Amino acid sequence: MKQFQPKDSNFAEKVRQSFDRQQVMQTIGAVLTLVEPGAVEIEMPYRKDLTQQHGFLHAGIVATILDTGCGYAALSLMPEEAAVLSIEFKVNLLAPAQGEMIKVRAEVKRAGQNITVCTADAWAIDAGQSKVVATMLGTMMCLRGRENLIS
Amino acid sequence: MKQFQPKDSNFAEKVRQSFDRQQVMQTIGAVLTLVEPGAVEIEMPYRKDLTQQHGFLHAGIVATILDTGCGYAALSLMPEEAAVLSIEFKVNLLAPAQGEMIKVRAEVKRAGQNITVCTADAWAIDAGQSKVVATMLGTMMCLRGRENLIS
Amino acid sequence: MKQFQPKDSNFAEKVRQSFDRQQVMQTIGAVLTLVEPGAVEIEMPYRKDLTQQHGFLHAGIVATILDTGCGYAALSLMPEEAAVLSIEFKVNLLAPAQGEMIKVRAEVKRAGQNITVCTADAWAIDAGQSKVVATMLGTMMCLRGRENLIS
Amino acid sequence: MKQFQPKDSNFAEKVRQSFDRQQVMQTIGAVLTLVEPGAVEIEMPYRKDLTQQHGFLHAGIVATILDTGCGYAALSLMPEEAAVLSIEFKVNLLAPAQGEMIKVRAEVKRAGQNITVCTADAWAIDAGQSKVVATMLGTMMCLRGRENLIS
Repeated sequence: MKQFQPKDSNFAEKVRQSFDRQQVMQTIGAVLTLVEPGAVEIEMPYRKDLTQQHGFLHAGIVATILDTGCGYAALSLMPEEAAVLSIEFKVNLLAPAQGEMIKVRAEVKRAGQNITVCTADAWAIDAGQSKVVATMLGTMMCLRGRENLIS
Repeated sequence: MKQFQPKDSNFAEKVRQSFDRQQVMQTIGAVLTLVEPGAVEIEMPYRKDLTQQHGFLHAGIVATILDTGCGYAALSLMPEEAAVLSIEFKVNLLAPAQGEMIKVRAEVKRAGQNITVCTADAWAIDAGQSKVVATMLGTMMCLRGRENLIS
Repeated sequence: MKQFQPKDSNFAEKVRQSFDRQQVMQTIGAVLTLVEPGAVEIEMPYRKDLTQQHGFLHAGIVATILDTGCGYAALSLMPEEAAVLSIEFKVNLLAPAQGEMIKVRAEVKRAGQNITVCTADAWAIDAGQSKVVATMLGTMMCLRGRENLIS
Repeated sequence: MKQFQPKDSNFAEKVRQSFDRQQVMQTIGAVLTLVEPGAVEIEMPYRKDLTQQHGFLHAGIVATILDTGCGYAALSLMPEEAAVLSIEFKVNLLAPAQGEMIKVRAEVKRAGQNITVCTADAWAIDAGQSKVVATMLGTMMCLRGRENLIS
């Protein structure tokens, strides 16, 4: 994995505060477990009320954590005053999202001036074993000087 | 828009019953408002507890309704005994998802024996005006003879 | 289809000149057949030397015309001094790309200040009949003030 | 990287023979330089006649090699009688594709019965230095018993 140099020495605190403002993360029970320069990890216990018709976690819920992961991996390398917005993402569903918990790790693939490209994997953890269930490739944008948007 | 001929005359009921088994739809307050051969529509009122850090609906929640829309648009054209599974999807976020309500329309682009490709748009409805906020291009798979999977 | 208002009254000429600088278009025999505000069309005769292992046009060659289409649909709405760059695209292959000719139509889905999202379809034309063989959803970026990049 | 067990002991020869039938590879000057279980590498010298308007290799040409890479990484793990077809792919362009040569490495992310998901990176090599210029996430399908399709 690449070594990244953060532009904002306070990046981890900034990411944590922004994550805490994502009300959907509390609603679905997702927790930010790691913040590094260019990478974050998120965990979410399986919940029956977030499932699709076969009893697996809905692909969109998995995408929700993957996208938040990509956004904050990108934000961790952005300048202090910047905010992050998702432009687009693509998700491949690799296996049914079932088990005790979903764990996501998102990493920056390339950090540009305006555009940051990230990848993220989601694993289902069950009885101490983990299996990759989904992967994302997404594009994030750096916003500057938009005072109406908090980072 | 293309005219499709359903293989299962009971397609609308089948789609409605499967939608009702998606517990996440009730959790986020999404309602299936239309089922046609090769197309479905879903509506979801804006909810503060499903937002990201800027107060917009989280892109993953919008993706959740878009993906459910694509899945059921595809299922509406599949044979009676078939179930549907998302292989992958890509979402472009076009504008902040805010307003009173999000409305999704998903349509089949091409229905194959095994693979069905769908497109879906999401609009934010506010004060009687609608604005497209996201679009999906996704790939769905037809599953047959898997008795452990309810459609 | 949406009605777009071009910012550059000379947009069609600008698009044609830029297309002519894409040497790959001449190499593969692709021709720009229509330029409108927010839309372009391109045609390319089938060529055996551009095929994959089954004798169909290679998906990447189809993607080449789709991407050029999306780029110029986007450029047609950008200001005079702007250049366009592809950030990303996703292609679904819907049917084998065979026949006498491939025709692409690309349209702007949403034109933003910096980011323009486009869709494009590719049809195979054979014996007067056309069949959709691929579809693209792509993200284009508006570049300004980069004098080393010709539009 | 994951360790994969090929189902066809003759996988490398099968991949090489199929690659040789892709006429577009010869047309653009691409060479298959490595075949392993679940991974392939391809190299292509820069060519001015494959460029877009700014003199960089066209994104669609880079996608052509990435897609061929993904297809053959997938095929390397499929049974003897199987053929491979691309369902869809998404490419992010990370930097201008310029330099002396483009090198692609494609790897299987997950190999299923019917669906194989692959990732691939493209690097520009220049004066002994390499820089990642594009990345693909794609979905491949295993075809069996279609005698009209050579693998």
